Parts: sequence; structure tokens; C-alpha cells
Amino acid sequence: MVAAYENDSWIRVIHPVIQPPTLKDNTGDVDRLLKGIKKALQTEEVKMDFSLINRVPFILRENEYDVRSVLYRGGDSWHLVDLYPSHMDDTIYGLSVDLGTSTVVVRLLDLITKETKDESSFQNPQIEMGPDILTRIHFASQEGGLERLQGLLMDRLNEEIGILSKRNDINASSISGMSVAGNTTMVHLFLGLNPYWICREPYIPVINRPDLIKSSKLGVKINPESPVMVLPNVGSYFGGDLMAGILASGMHHQKETSILVDVGTNAEVVLGNRDWLMACAGAAGPALEGGVASMGMMAGPGVIDKLLIEPSSGEFQIRTIENKPPVGICGSGMIDLLAQLFLAGMIDLRGKYVGNRCRGRLREIDGIKHLVVVSSQDSATGEELTLSQADIDALLRSKAAMYTILTTITRMINVSMDEISHFYVAGTFGSYVDPRSAITIGMIPDLPLETYKSLGNTSLKGASMALLSASARDEVYQIRDRITYIELNVNQEFMNLFSAAKFIPHTDRSLFPSVQAWLPK
Amino acid sequence: MVAAYENDSWIRVIHPVIQPPTLKDNTGDVDRLLKGIKKALQTEEVKMDFSLINRVPFILRENEYDVRSVLYRGGDSWHLVDLYPSHMDDTIYGLSVDLGTSTVVVRLLDLITKETKDESSFQNPQIEMGPDILTRIHFASQEGGLERLQGLLMDRLNEEIGILSKRNDINASSISGMSVAGNTTMVHLFLGLNPYWICREPYIPVINRPDLIKSSKLGVKINPESPVMVLPNVGSYFGGDLMAGILASGMHHQKETSILVDVGTNAEVVLGNRDWLMACAGAAGPALEGGVASMGMMAGPGVIDKLLIEPSSGEFQIRTIENKPPVGICGSGMIDLLAQLFLAGMIDLRGKYVGNRCRGRLREIDGIKHLVVVSSQDSATGEELTLSQADIDALLRSKAAMYTILTTITRMINVSMDEISHFYVAGTFGSYVDPRSAITIGMIPDLPLETYKSLGNTSLKGASMALLSASARDEVYQIRDRITYIELNVNQEFMNLFSAAKFIPHTDRSLFPSVQAWLPK
Repeated sequence: MVAAYENDSWIRVIHPVIQPPTLKDNTGDVDRLLKGIKKALQTEEVKMDFSLINRVPFILRENEYDVRSVLYRGGDSWHLVDLYPSHMDDTIYGLSVDLGTSTVVVRLLDLITKETKDESSFQNPQIEMGPDILTRIHFASQEGGLERLQGLLMDRLNEEIGILSKRNDINASSISGMSVAGNTTMVHLFLGLNPYWICREPYIPVINRPDLIKSSKLGVKINPESPVMVLPNVGSYFGGDLMAGILASGMHHQKETSILVDVGTNAEVVLGNRDWLMACAGAAGPALEGGVASMGMMAGPGVIDKLLIEPSSGEFQIRTIENKPPVGICGSGMIDLLAQLFLAGMIDLRGKYVGNRCRGRLREIDGIKHLVVVSSQDSATGEELTLSQADIDALLRSKAAMYTILTTITRMINVSMDEISHFYVAGTFGSYVDPRSAITIGMIPDLPLETYKSLGNTSLKGASMALLSASARDEVYQIRDRITYIELNVNQEFMNLFSAAKFIPHTDRSLFPSVQAWLPK
Repeated sequence: MVAAYENDSWIRVIHPVIQPPTLKDNTGDVDRLLKGIKKALQTEEVKMDFSLINRVPFILRENEYDVRSVLYRGGDSWHLVDLYPSHMDDTIYGLSVDLGTSTVVVRLLDLITKETKDESSFQNPQIEMGPDILTRIHFASQEGGLERLQGLLMDRLNEEIGILSKRNDINASSISGMSVAGNTTMVHLFLGLNPYWICREPYIPVINRPDLIKSSKLGVKINPESPVMVLPNVGSYFGGDLMAGILASGMHHQKETSILVDVGTNAEVVLGNRDWLMACAGAAGPALEGGVASMGMMAGPGVIDKLLIEPSSGEFQIRTIENKPPVGICGSGMIDLLAQLFLAGMIDLRGKYVGNRCRGRLREIDGIKHLVVVSSQDSATGEELTLSQADIDALLRSKAAMYTILTTITRMINVSMDEISHFYVAGTFGSYVDPRSAITIGMIPDLPLETYKSLGNTSLKGASMALLSASARDEVYQIRDRITYIELNVNQEFMNLFSAAKFIPHTDRSLFPSVQAWLPK
């Protein structure tokens, strides 16, 4: 699915042939070096930052004009990152970063072999100042707030770069490039750009397409002259993480029409093919990411990520992450749970508990019905893990929002669901979701199961691709320029669709023939 | 003579048309601004330094998207220097600098009207660390020496910029560009580049062709994003001041062959036309710049710059700068003096004093003959101003060196002196030299007097032209790339020519028919 990118690195190591000076050839050291580099790269434009110039004569002379150089291509020019004695190790590294609101994932790449050398992640330390985008934008508008948010992230990122360097026994100065994909606000905070206008009508980012920026200007502690590529955004609510996702999916190359969905706090949807790309974002509700349901949480050890209700006995078979005693349930587990409850007849098509089918599992707490998913004996906490009617209602609103967005975007451009050849699910969340369960609750359309494909962390994948290949990098900008962003118009028609989609799987059952087949006869 | 350059400024003020954002057009502020600028300049490539980005949304919004911007062209891109409210004054300024070893001249230019607004000069403060190039190179190699030399110059330059700004009631931030022409060593010290290898075989500069450098990187206190153009050099002994000189002369445009001579500590010679350019440099001796002759000095008030010996009475008629009582004699005065002494028969063709013709003007001091040029009563110092036999010998070596270089370079490329249509003399020194006197002593060839043209400070002129016009700027680099630098080969043939040229005007009198005519019958 990922297009095969030829070996077209935009960050390279070369060994230029440099003639030592003579009385007959008195070319300056810098010009001499640039001449060798231009010849090696067969280019006319090579630029060198002024800060590197004074080092050139020393390193050339110390190594008898036998050096290797690291360069990157930006615009129509190649730019020198560094010079090394030619006897040194040739390996250079890069970092690709998925800059999440909650979690930052850093991948260490070998820029020569293009292999992943290591990967690690950490909680975005800006969480301390606010868990979500809006609180951080608000914090940034306070005196010194923006600097604080950027500093927190940069310090933590630099710490992680130190850890990765040490663990892999490499010098941070051999890290010669970085790519960063994140939502528009996270990218603004990373760059130290004021996000004030992002959340205010008409929702304008400071910048859509940042140029390559030198790491030293941002304070990222890798080679100071190395380029940082920040993936471009289409607007305040459609960020570089999605551009990375489209790149990673390869949908922009395919003749057939695909859908890409990234479910987080927002559900971001891209529909398109090699001829056109449409994007749309809407609130999917936090229920899918944990936090709303009393037992909902992010994926982690002991978290229920899969659940099956034995049709005959009504027994709950659960799978937890790392097979630890259950502590809670994550989004994908919740979707399974809801689907299983529906198939077992324990909730009706409105999502309401059916008392006589739930047997002894129902409790009433503060006047609200709760279903015991894990008994206090079996749970890691010693307390019952329950799902309340309110939790279900929240999840139904989320799934209805998702389905309505999908319906709306396909209707807008007159594409029927049948025409969707691939349905890509991006994000860590997506990798755990069982499409059959998601179809059962009517969250996603009733397409053949093989249409669905989970792509994992496409933000990181796309960022890595853009760092490793010039054509992949170019494609990111082409994707950005091609994409049409549709602002969701929450009008009466949308609300009607939304109301119809709050049922399980939908008021119009004919849209979900498979679910009819899966229901016990 | 100076080619007419069309209005092709590479530093410009424009008023881009920028549409304010709407819900339907959510383009980021920076991208929105760049779009407007690209349209106004009809270009695809506009770059903005990262440091400017955060200011963009504020200034756009405060001025309702009605701003003017200052940009410069570097390589294939335009670069933003600054943004201003559109109601502000449109004038932007530039500085051209002649970076001399002894004197630095700064010209303030209006970049819109292209007029010179002001000009001032100061002694190069590096003189404190060494009067000449070699002592400064030595000083630079000491711990902290390079930083000291650069710092001294930069502080003094910034002081002068402050004075010029105040005197002309302008804000230093409206100075949006600078050009600097100087010899290769001075330019290295200005840029903080190590000049160590300049004076060591094979005499290699760190750099020949510096890119445009942002003023803030150098510490020049003008608009921090404004470009500093440092004129390129051809080698350690043929600097950007000469490139500026060629540009100012216009010889590179002419069909006829010209010579350009800049006499300082070195005599730098360029021979050529629109098809080819040859350059050559050689030691002309410091006698011509003052300092060797006991009464020799740089031009200044009271310095004799012109001298005539009344043929009948043998009386010395002197002209001093500002008509002050005489304090000494400068290079041009010395050439007049020598020529007049020769024509009056007071020295012979070997430059030796002819006792019976000098009447009472000869003194013997420490066994060396001295001629009294100004009596103690007439001199400003109360002491006699004298010219010793040793002074004459030194001057003859200098003039012989100059003539030999001119002979050598014309012979090398098989151009006869008759083919020289223009003989341009560059430098402040040159503007005072009387070609007739210089011919009389055999310093320059016996060409029709109208062939000689003094161009004044061509380093400053050329730097100004390059700052004001993109095509003039391009030409500087074309000149640099076209020029062939000939290392003077001081072989037996050169020495023979040199020996012959030490006579007045020359051992071969047929080379100087005019001098024969000027001699009293």
C-alpha cells in the first residue's frame, strides 16, 4: 500500500573529491570544498551557513582535503550540515516524531540503510499545563505561557534524544535531520508560534507550510545545522499528522477511492484517490479515547481491549493487554463490549439495558443503571468494573457522529459507500478496533471486512517516510495543496442523520445487512 | 563610462495585496502574506526567516492586512527583511563600505531614489593592532586576536552607523542592506574569518565568494534581517575592492582594451575588455603612500600634493591641501617633485642629485644627501622638509615596479601599450597624481594624456553600484569568474626589465618620446 520510494534521500553523506591548493590553483578553501560538493552532487546550488565557514580551512587541512560531508536538500539548493574526516563512520541518523497532544513518539532512523534503529515515547509534558488543545491555547496566551509550553516540550524531547543516543551508542551530532508531524496546535507550540487565532473564528493558523528550520533555531539538540521538517497543515483543524497519514496510506496514488479515518478527540476523515482528496473533521467525542466512561482509559497493561459474550452462557470472555488482571477498558474494548451486548440482546437498538437479559449484572447507582463487566473478585482493583447507561449514551453519540460524518462527506461528493475500496483506520486506537464490532454498533459502514485496514501510527509512519525520501517529502506538499477541506456544516440535515445514527446499528437496518446476519437467530 | 544600470533594485519595498481571512479562506497568516508578496513580485520563491514568523499575525491584524514589506533577492529567492504598517514612510536605506586597511569610508544611500544621502570615513581601528596587513594577520593568529580585530572594526562601524543615522534623522532599522568592498585580508577580518593562510604559500583565502550574510550574524547594527553583500575576491592578493574597481570603471563592457591600476602598498593591475580580463598584483612599495620618505605622509591638510619648479629661477612653487602651511608631502606630490627635479636637471637619469644644479638646497645628513624642499621658515613644523637620496631611490624602485608590472602583463598577453584606449587610475592616491609627472618619471607609459582617467574611490563606487542594482551585483560575480589572475613571476626577465625601469624615465628613452619634448631645450 505504501508506495515504493526509490532511493532518493534528501539528507546525504558524500565524499567529495577536493584538490589540495597549489600556487597555480589558489581557490579559497570554502569555494574549493563547494566545488567538490557540487561536482559530487551534480548540482549548481550548494549553500553553507556562515557559522560553518571558519571551520572549513581547519578540517580540510587537518585531513589533507579528504573529508566527507553531510548535506540536505531544501528548495533548489543543497545545504551543508557538517564536515567530518573521511576515515570516520559514515552513518548518519534522523528522527521522526509523532507529536501527539497526549503522547510523543520518537523514532530513530538510520538515514543510510533507512532502517528503524530504535523508538520510544513519552507523555507530552504540556499535559501539566492542560490536558487538551483548548486549555493549552489558553495557557499560551498568558504571560510567558507560550515559552513555557515550548520549553517543556523541547526539554523533554531533548532528554529523550539523549536517552536514544546513549542507548544506541551514537553521538547526537550525527543526527542530521528530523521530521515532525502533529496537529496544528501542537506544531505551533513546538515552533513557539502563537496559537491564539487557531481556536477563534475564522480559525487561522500562523502558518500552514513551515519551511525547513535549522534545529539550532528551535533548540533541538541534534546537529545544529540539521533541518527540521514540520509537516504542513491544511488549517487549524487538519494538521500535519493527517498529511502524514495520507502519505502513509498511499491513497493519493490509487485509482480506487479510499477513506482514511483517524479517530481521536476529533474524527478526521479523508476521502479520495489519485485524482482528488476531500477532508473533513468533526467532534467524535472523547468516549472513544477513554476518560468519559467510568472505567474507560487509555490502552495499557490490564486494560480490556477485546471482549466476547458467550451466546449460550452469557459469560464475558475478556482479553487484557499483557494478560494482566483487568483494571479498565479502552476504546476498542468498549466498542467490542457494546457490540457484544447488542448481539446478546443485553441492550436494545436504542442502547438501553434490557433488564431480563442482563441477569444479575445490573446495578442501580445514583439512579443510573450500571452493568458489571468484571466482578470485584476478578478485577485488579478489587472493585467492580462497570459500564453505566450514561457511558453507553456517550459512546453512541460518538459513533453516531462518526457515521454521520462519513455519510455526509460521501454524500457531499456523491460517492456511495459501495465505491469505497479501502477503509484505512489510522492511529493507535484504530489498531485495536475490531471492524466487525464497529460495524455491529453502526460506527462504520457495513463494508466487506477486508476493506478495513488498520495502519497504526500513520503520523509517525508518514513523518518517517518524508524524512527518508525526497519524493515522499514532495508528496506531502502536493497532498497539502491538492486537498479540499470541507468545514462540517452542522445543519438540520446533519442533525437528522445524526439522530438516525444513534441507534444500533442504525434506524435504517437495510444499511447494515451483515449485522442482521450476525444476530443470533 | 559607468554603464547605465536600469532600475533593477535587489532590495525593494512593496505593498502586497493581502485578503483578510474568512471562514471560506482559512489560509495561515504567513502563507497569506507570502501569497500576496509572490503575486506582487511575480515570483514563486519567497523566504522568511523563522525569527520573523511570530510577528506576522500581529502586524497583519493590527494593520488590517494592509502592510508594506521590504525584501531582497538572494539566489533564486526573495527574502523578507521586514514588515511595516503601510501608512509609514516608504524610504529604505543602504550602506556601501570601502573597507580600507587604513581608512574605512561609509556611504549612506537612499535605496529608492538611489541617491547618496551622506558619506563619512574613519580610521580603521585595527591600526591599533598593526598598521599593515601582515601584522594584523599575525595578531589574528594570537589567542582571541581575530575576535579582537573583528570587534574593534565592528564597534567602530556601528558607531559610525549611529552617527550617520542620527545626522540624517533615520532609524537604523530602515537601513535594509549593505555592501562591503575591501582587500581579501580586511574582508576576512570583517567576517571574523581566519586570515592565517592568506600570507602563507600557496596563499589561500578561507573564502572567495561569500554568500549574502544577514547583518545580525555579523553584528552590524542595521535591520537584523538585512543582507550584507561582501564583494568576492580572486585570491589572497586580489580583493573585492578591485572587483568593485573594475565594475566602476566599466572596462568589462568596452570593446577597446583598458588598464585599471590601483596603487597602494601593492600595485594592482587589470588589463582587459568585454572579452577578457587579466589581473596581476605586485609590491609597488610603500613610498607612494607616504611613510618611507622622511617627509612622506598620507594626504591631509598642509600636505604638499602638487609642486612645480620654475625653470628659470629654480624656485619651488608648492600647493598644499587646504592651502595650509606645508607639513610634508604625499605620494602625488612626491611624483610631481621627482618629475620636476628631473626636468630641472637637479637629478639625473639615475635619480642622483646633481650638485651644481641644486644650488644651496643640498644638505648632507648622516652621510646621505638631502634636498631642502621647504625651508624651516616656510614649513608648518619650523623644520626643513627634505627629500633624501634614499627617498628617491625607494620611489624609483616603486615606479620601476609599477612600470615593470605594466610591461610584463601587456607582454604576457601580447598587447602593445598603443592598444590601450583607457588607463584608469583607482584610489584616492590616483586622484591626485598628475599623469604628466608620472609619465615624466617613467612610472606609467607614455600614452596620450587624455588616455588617463582618475576614478577616485572605485572601491566605494563599485560597492555602491552593486548594492543599488541587481545587474551590477551580478556583474561583480561575472567579473570575478571571468578574470584570470597572473601570479607575477619574478624571474630574470622581470629583473632585467625592472633594472631598466629604475632610470628616469627609462634606459630606453624611445619609450618616452613626450618626456624628451618636455625637457628644456
